Amino acid sequence: MKKIAVLALAAVAGALCTPAFAQFAKPEDAIKYRQSALFIMAQNVGRIGAMAQGRVPFDAKVAADSAATAEFMSKLPWSAFVDGSQKGSIPTRAKPEIWAEKAKFDGLSEKLQAEMAKLNAAAKTGNLDNIKSAMGGVGAACKACHDDYQAKL
Amino acid sequence: MKKIAVLALAAVAGALCTPAFAQFAKPEDAIKYRQSALFIMAQNVGRIGAMAQGRVPFDAKVAADSAATAEFMSKLPWSAFVDGSQKGSIPTRAKPEIWAEKAKFDGLSEKLQAEMAKLNAAAKTGNLDNIKSAMGGVGAACKACHDDYQAKL
Repeated sequence: MKKIAVLALAAVAGALCTPAFAQFAKPEDAIKYRQSALFIMAQNVGRIGAMAQGRVPFDAKVAADSAATAEFMSKLPWSAFVDGSQKGSIPTRAKPEIWAEKAKFDGLSEKLQAEMAKLNAAAKTGNLDNIKSAMGGVGAACKACHDDYQAKL
Repeated sequence: MKKIAVLALAAVAGALCTPAFAQFAKPEDAIKYRQSALFIMAQNVGRIGAMAQGRVPFDAKVAADSAATAEFMSKLPWSAFVDGSQKGSIPTRAKPEIWAEKAKFDGLSEKLQAEMAKLNAAAKTGNLDNIKSAMGGVGAACKACHDDYQAKL
Protein backbone atom coordinates (compact mmCIF):
# COMPACT_ATOMS: atom_id res chain seq x y z
CA MET A 1 0.00 0.00 0.00
CA LYS A 2 2.75 2.42 0.99
CA LYS A 3 4.79 1.58 -2.11
CA ILE A 4 1.79 2.19 -4.33
CA ALA A 5 1.20 5.50 -2.63
CA VAL A 6 4.81 6.58 -3.12
CA LEU A 7 4.72 5.50 -6.78
CA ALA A 8 1.44 7.35 -7.27
CA LEU A 9 2.99 10.45 -5.84
CA ALA A 10 6.02 10.06 -8.05
CA ALA A 11 3.75 9.77 -11.07
CA VAL A 12 2.04 12.96 -10.01
CA ALA A 13 5.44 14.59 -9.60
CA GLY A 14 5.90 13.79 -13.24
CA ALA A 15 8.46 15.41 -15.45
CA LEU A 16 10.10 17.70 -12.95
CA CYS A 17 13.47 17.45 -14.64
CA THR A 18 12.80 19.77 -17.61
CA PRO A 19 15.70 22.21 -17.50
CA ALA A 20 13.58 25.32 -18.02
CA PHE A 21 11.43 24.54 -15.02
CA ALA A 22 13.53 23.41 -12.10
CA GLN A 23 10.48 23.32 -9.92
CA PHE A 24 7.53 23.14 -12.28
CA ALA A 25 6.73 20.48 -14.85
CA LYS A 26 5.01 22.92 -17.19
CA PRO A 27 4.21 26.64 -17.50
CA GLU A 28 0.62 26.11 -16.33
CA ASP A 29 1.88 24.72 -13.02
CA ALA A 30 4.00 27.81 -12.44
CA ILE A 31 1.14 30.14 -13.37
CA LYS A 32 -1.33 28.26 -11.16
CA TYR A 33 1.17 28.12 -8.28
CA ARG A 34 1.69 31.86 -8.11
CA GLN A 35 -2.01 32.60 -8.63
CA SER A 36 -2.88 30.16 -5.83
CA ALA A 37 -0.42 31.74 -3.42
CA LEU A 38 -1.55 35.28 -4.26
CA PHE A 39 -5.22 34.30 -3.90
CA ILE A 40 -4.77 32.79 -0.45
CA MET A 41 -2.71 35.80 0.58
CA ALA A 42 -5.36 38.23 -0.68
CA GLN A 43 -8.18 36.36 1.04
CA ASN A 44 -6.37 36.53 4.36
CA VAL A 45 -5.43 40.19 3.94
CA GLY A 46 -9.02 40.89 2.95
CA ARG A 47 -10.31 39.42 6.19
CA ILE A 48 -8.10 41.80 8.14
CA GLY A 49 -9.10 44.69 5.89
CA ALA A 50 -12.76 44.08 6.64
CA MET A 51 -11.97 44.43 10.35
CA ALA A 52 -9.80 47.49 9.79
CA GLN A 53 -12.71 49.13 7.97
CA GLY A 54 -15.24 48.15 10.61
CA ARG A 55 -17.20 45.99 8.15
CA VAL A 56 -16.89 42.98 10.43
CA PRO A 57 -16.26 42.87 14.19
CA PHE A 58 -12.63 42.85 15.22
CA ASP A 59 -11.46 39.39 16.28
CA ALA A 60 -7.86 39.53 17.41
CA LYS A 61 -7.26 35.80 17.03
CA VAL A 62 -8.67 35.63 13.51
CA ALA A 63 -6.67 38.70 12.55
CA ALA A 64 -3.49 37.19 13.98
CA ASP A 65 -4.04 33.86 12.24
CA SER A 66 -4.83 35.59 8.95
CA ALA A 67 -1.76 37.82 9.19
CA ALA A 68 0.50 34.85 9.93
CA THR A 69 -0.92 33.00 6.94
CA ALA A 70 -0.62 36.08 4.72
CA GLU A 71 3.01 36.55 5.71
CA PHE A 72 3.82 32.94 4.93
CA MET A 73 2.02 33.10 1.59
CA SER A 74 3.82 36.33 0.69
CA LYS A 75 7.06 34.37 0.32
CA LEU A 76 5.70 31.81 -2.13
CA PRO A 77 4.67 33.37 -5.45
CA TRP A 78 8.03 34.66 -6.59
CA SER A 79 9.79 31.39 -7.40
CA ALA A 80 6.92 30.68 -9.80
CA PHE A 81 7.68 33.64 -12.07
CA VAL A 82 10.13 31.43 -13.91
CA ASP A 83 11.40 32.18 -17.39
CA GLY A 84 9.19 30.25 -19.77
CA SER A 85 6.01 30.85 -17.76
CA GLN A 86 5.25 34.23 -19.31
CA LYS A 87 2.26 32.46 -20.76
CA GLY A 88 0.74 29.01 -20.85
CA SER A 89 -2.51 27.18 -21.42
CA ILE A 90 -4.22 29.14 -18.62
CA PRO A 91 -4.60 32.93 -18.57
CA THR A 92 -2.13 35.03 -16.63
CA ARG A 93 -2.18 38.72 -15.78
CA ALA A 94 1.58 38.71 -15.30
CA LYS A 95 2.98 41.36 -17.64
CA PRO A 96 6.10 40.56 -19.71
CA GLU A 97 7.79 43.52 -18.01
CA ILE A 98 8.22 41.29 -14.96
CA TRP A 99 10.96 39.43 -16.80
CA ALA A 100 12.37 42.46 -18.59
CA GLU A 101 12.64 44.36 -15.28
CA LYS A 102 13.33 41.45 -12.95
CA ALA A 103 15.43 43.38 -10.43
CA LYS A 104 12.72 45.99 -10.03
CA PHE A 105 10.02 43.33 -9.70
CA ASP A 106 12.10 41.49 -7.11
CA GLY A 107 12.49 44.73 -5.16
CA LEU A 108 8.73 45.21 -5.05
CA SER A 109 8.13 41.64 -3.91
CA GLU A 110 10.69 42.12 -1.14
CA LYS A 111 8.90 45.30 -0.08
CA LEU A 112 5.61 43.39 0.09
CA GLN A 113 7.17 40.70 2.23
CA ALA A 114 8.56 43.34 4.58
CA GLU A 115 5.14 44.98 4.92
CA MET A 116 3.50 41.60 5.54
CA ALA A 117 6.00 40.97 8.33
CA LYS A 118 5.01 44.30 9.89
CA LEU A 119 1.32 43.41 9.56
CA ASN A 120 1.99 40.08 11.24
CA ALA A 121 3.78 41.82 14.10
CA ALA A 122 0.95 44.35 14.44
CA ALA A 123 -1.68 41.63 14.47
CA LYS A 124 0.20 39.82 17.24
CA THR A 125 -0.28 42.88 19.46
CA GLY A 126 -4.04 42.39 19.22
CA ASN A 127 -4.40 46.15 18.79
CA LEU A 128 -6.68 47.26 15.96
CA ASP A 129 -5.00 50.65 15.54
CA ASN A 130 -1.65 48.94 15.01
CA ILE A 131 -3.28 46.70 12.45
CA LYS A 132 -4.91 49.60 10.60
CA SER A 133 -1.57 51.34 10.42
CA ALA A 134 0.21 48.27 9.07
CA MET A 135 -2.56 47.66 6.52
CA GLY A 136 -1.73 50.98 4.91
CA GLY A 137 1.77 49.80 4.12
CA VAL A 138 0.50 46.47 2.82
CA GLY A 139 -2.05 48.12 0.55
CA ALA A 140 0.55 50.46 -0.85
CA ALA A 141 2.94 47.57 -1.55
CA CYS A 142 0.24 45.53 -3.31
CA LYS A 143 -0.70 48.56 -5.42
CA ALA A 144 2.88 49.45 -6.33
CA CYS A 145 3.54 46.07 -7.87
CA HIS A 146 0.13 45.71 -9.52
CA ASP A 147 0.33 49.16 -11.10
CA ASP A 148 3.41 48.15 -13.09
CA TYR A 149 3.23 44.38 -13.42
CA GLN A 150 -0.36 43.17 -13.35
CA ALA A 151 -2.34 43.51 -16.60
CA LYS A 152 -5.64 45.33 -16.19
CA LEU A 153 -8.79 43.23 -16.57
CA MET B 1 -2.16 57.30 -0.80
CA LYS B 2 -2.34 55.04 2.23
CA LYS B 3 -6.03 55.79 2.78
CA ILE B 4 -6.79 54.94 -0.85
CA ALA B 5 -4.89 51.70 -0.52
CA VAL B 6 -6.77 50.71 2.64
CA LEU B 7 -10.11 51.58 1.00
CA ALA B 8 -9.14 49.60 -2.09
CA LEU B 9 -8.34 46.63 0.08
CA ALA B 10 -11.63 47.00 1.92
CA ALA B 11 -13.44 47.03 -1.41
CA VAL B 12 -11.64 43.85 -2.34
CA ALA B 13 -12.59 42.40 1.02
CA GLY B 14 -16.15 42.95 -0.11
CA ALA B 15 -19.13 41.29 1.47
CA LEU B 16 -17.43 39.24 4.12
CA CYS B 17 -20.37 39.53 6.49
CA THR B 18 -22.72 37.01 4.86
CA PRO B 19 -23.73 34.71 7.71
CA ALA B 20 -23.25 31.49 5.77
CA PHE B 21 -19.67 32.32 4.98
CA ALA B 22 -17.90 33.73 8.00
CA GLN B 23 -14.67 33.80 6.08
CA PHE B 24 -15.67 33.71 2.42
CA ALA B 25 -17.79 36.17 0.49
CA LYS B 26 -19.13 33.52 -1.88
CA PRO B 27 -18.97 29.79 -2.50
CA GLU B 28 -16.47 30.24 -5.34
CA ASP B 29 -14.00 31.86 -2.96
CA ALA B 30 -14.21 28.89 -0.60
CA ILE B 31 -13.81 26.42 -3.46
CA LYS B 32 -10.87 28.32 -4.94
CA TYR B 33 -9.26 28.72 -1.50
CA ARG B 34 -9.17 25.03 -0.75
CA GLN B 35 -8.12 24.11 -4.30
CA SER B 36 -5.30 26.67 -4.11
CA ALA B 37 -4.02 25.34 -0.80
CA LEU B 38 -4.20 21.72 -1.95
CA PHE B 39 -2.43 22.58 -5.23
CA ILE B 40 0.49 24.31 -3.53
CA MET B 41 0.71 21.44 -1.05
CA ALA B 42 0.71 18.84 -3.84
CA GLN B 43 3.36 20.70 -5.84
CA ASN B 44 5.67 20.78 -2.84
CA VAL B 45 5.05 17.14 -1.94
CA GLY B 46 5.64 16.26 -5.59
CA ARG B 47 9.05 17.88 -5.54
CA ILE B 48 10.02 15.70 -2.60
CA GLY B 49 8.48 12.65 -4.25
CA ALA B 50 10.64 13.16 -7.32
CA MET B 51 13.72 13.05 -5.09
CA ALA B 52 12.45 10.04 -3.15
CA GLN B 53 12.03 8.19 -6.43
CA GLY B 54 15.44 9.24 -7.74
CA ARG B 55 13.89 11.17 -10.67
CA VAL B 56 15.73 14.33 -9.66
CA PRO B 57 18.90 14.67 -7.58
CA PHE B 58 18.37 14.90 -3.83
CA ASP B 59 18.73 18.45 -2.55
CA ALA B 60 18.31 18.52 1.22
CA LYS B 61 17.58 22.24 1.38
CA VAL B 62 14.93 22.14 -1.33
CA ALA B 63 13.36 19.11 0.31
CA ALA B 64 13.32 20.80 3.70
CA ASP B 65 11.82 24.01 2.30
CA SER B 66 9.20 22.06 0.37
CA ALA B 67 8.28 19.97 3.39
CA ALA B 68 7.92 23.07 5.58
CA THR B 69 5.69 24.68 2.98
CA ALA B 70 3.65 21.50 2.53
CA GLU B 71 3.11 21.22 6.27
CA PHE B 72 1.93 24.80 6.51
CA MET B 73 -0.37 24.38 3.51
CA SER B 74 -1.82 21.16 4.99
CA LYS B 75 -3.54 23.24 7.69
CA LEU B 76 -5.33 25.59 5.31
CA PRO B 77 -7.88 23.81 3.12
CA TRP B 78 -10.23 22.56 5.82
CA SER B 79 -11.80 25.84 6.92
CA ALA B 80 -12.87 26.31 3.30
CA PHE B 81 -15.14 23.24 3.24
CA VAL B 82 -17.90 25.44 4.62
CA ASP B 83 -21.54 24.54 4.44
CA GLY B 84 -22.90 26.24 1.34
CA SER B 85 -19.77 25.63 -0.71
CA GLN B 86 -20.77 22.13 -1.84
CA LYS B 87 -20.94 23.71 -5.26
CA GLY B 88 -20.53 27.08 -6.88
CA SER B 89 -19.83 28.74 -10.18
CA ILE B 90 -16.50 26.90 -10.52
CA PRO B 91 -16.16 23.10 -10.63
CA THR B 92 -15.31 21.22 -7.48
CA ARG B 93 -14.37 17.57 -6.95
CA ALA B 94 -15.44 17.75 -3.32
CA LYS B 95 -18.04 15.03 -2.83
CA PRO B 96 -21.22 15.84 -0.85
CA GLU B 97 -20.24 13.04 1.55
CA ILE B 98 -17.71 15.47 3.03
CA TRP B 99 -20.56 17.32 4.69
CA ALA B 100 -22.65 14.24 5.43
CA GLU B 101 -19.67 12.56 7.13
CA LYS B 102 -17.91 15.62 8.52
CA ALA B 103 -16.38 13.93 11.56
CA LYS B 104 -14.82 11.24 9.41
CA PHE B 105 -13.54 13.81 6.91
CA ASP B 106 -12.08 15.88 9.74
CA GLY B 107 -10.33 12.79 11.07
CA LEU B 108 -8.70 12.15 7.71
CA SER B 109 -7.55 15.78 7.40
CA GLU B 110 -6.04 15.55 10.88
CA LYS B 111 -4.22 12.37 9.85
CA LEU B 112 -2.82 14.16 6.80
CA GLN B 113 -1.58 17.03 8.93
CA ALA B 114 0.11 14.58 11.30
CA GLU B 115 1.86 12.84 8.39
CA MET B 116 2.96 16.19 6.96
CA ALA B 117 4.48 17.08 10.32
CA LYS B 118 6.43 13.79 10.23
CA LEU B 119 7.59 14.53 6.68
CA ASN B 120 8.71 17.98 7.77
CA ALA B 121 10.68 16.48 10.66
CA ALA B 122 12.22 13.87 8.35
CA ALA B 123 13.22 16.49 5.81
CA LYS B 124 14.90 18.53 8.52
CA THR B 125 17.26 15.59 9.17
CA GLY B 126 18.54 15.90 5.61
CA ASN B 127 18.44 12.12 5.31
CA LEU B 128 16.82 10.77 2.16
CA ASP B 129 15.88 7.43 3.72
CA ASN B 130 13.98 9.22 6.49
CA ILE B 131 12.21 11.25 3.83
CA LYS B 132 11.29 8.18 1.77
CA SER B 133 9.84 6.56 4.84
CA ALA B 134 7.77 9.61 5.76
CA MET B 135 6.54 9.97 2.17
CA GLY B 136 4.86 6.59 2.47
CA GLY B 137 2.68 7.87 5.29
CA VAL B 138 1.87 11.06 3.40
CA GLY B 139 0.89 9.20 0.26
CA ALA B 140 -1.35 6.86 2.21
CA ALA B 141 -3.06 9.79 3.95
CA CYS B 142 -3.68 11.61 0.65
CA LYS B 143 -5.10 8.44 -0.87
CA ALA B 144 -7.34 7.63 2.09
CA CYS B 145 -9.16 10.94 1.87
CA HIS B 146 -9.30 11.06 -1.93
CA ASP B 147 -10.69 7.53 -2.17
CA ASP B 148 -13.79 8.55 -0.22
CA TYR B 149 -14.16 12.28 -0.72
CA GLN B 150 -12.70 13.33 -4.07
CA ALA B 151 -14.85 12.74 -7.15
CA LYS B 152 -13.08 10.84 -9.91
CA LEU B 153 -12.23 12.78 -13.06
